[in-house]
Amino acid sequence: MSANSHFTTEAAGTPTAKGRFVQVSTVPPVEFLPGLEFRPVLGEKTLTNFVRFAPYTEAPMHVHEEEQIVVVLDGEFDFEINGDVRTMRPGDVAVVPSWVPHGARTKETNCYEVDVFTPPRRTLLEHAAATAAAQESAEQSPS
Amino acid sequence: MSANSHFTTEAAGTPTAKGRFVQVSTVPPVEFLPGLEFRPVLGEKTLTNFVRFAPYTEAPMHVHEEEQIVVVLDGEFDFEINGDVRTMRPGDVAVVPSWVPHGARTKETNCYEVDVFTPPRRTLLEHAAATAAAQESAEQSPS
Repeated sequence: MSANSHFTTEAAGTPTAKGRFVQVSTVPPVEFLPGLEFRPVLGEKTLTNFVRFAPYTEAPMHVHEEEQIVVVLDGEFDFEINGDVRTMRPGDVAVVPSWVPHGARTKETNCYEVDVFTPPRRTLLEHAAATAAAQESAEQSPS
Repeated sequence: MSANSHFTTEAAGTPTAKGRFVQVSTVPPVEFLPGLEFRPVLGEKTLTNFVRFAPYTEAPMHVHEEEQIVVVLDGEFDFEINGDVRTMRPGDVAVVPSWVPHGARTKETNCYEVDVFTPPRRTLLEHAAATAAAQESAEQSPS
């Protein structure tokens, strides 16, 4: 494997969309549960969801079809994969395949992490669509 | 959108693999170019590649089919998407669709970032396969 083949400029296709830069702090937060803030950044094939847990906050055990990779950015939380609980901190990653039960909870600290969902997690896309429709409806209402 | 539908425990399928925890520091680094260390963590549908740039190191402009989402973890670098150059720091994300030209370079600082590739980037999978084959061959050689 050479740097030349990894960093090739030979395109075998055409761009599927424009690239973009996003400052996560500018993404309006979604709060599905108290103390749990989601800031999703959407690609075409993958959704990255930047998540802040307040202290003593739980994302209850759950399952979904989308693959999830968890990267802790700051603070720590206890993450459970199918009965195996580990305290995760920056430098730790969890890989959660389709339909594997998992959940997380903070103790006395905050946790800031990014969840990578492939394909984009359906419930987050539905929320975004519902929010956009509500905004459009509000803008069309007489004031 | 409710927390109940997002955090459902109703599985409509069976797990496709076991989940796992990874400490990124335990992943052997791959150095495609001097000053550029890759530590890949592979899922089934997505590959996360944890990348350290030394100061004054460049990932030259290039293209590939895989979608890429870039999350800066520490330090900073100048990232270019198709002519648009921004200095990215923690809190900044870049979304690079298929075949969009991009590259990055550090100045006087380090940069530590994670590249999310969907599907897993072919050149990194090939490198991993070649490394595994070389190790197996070395183990089978008479010493």
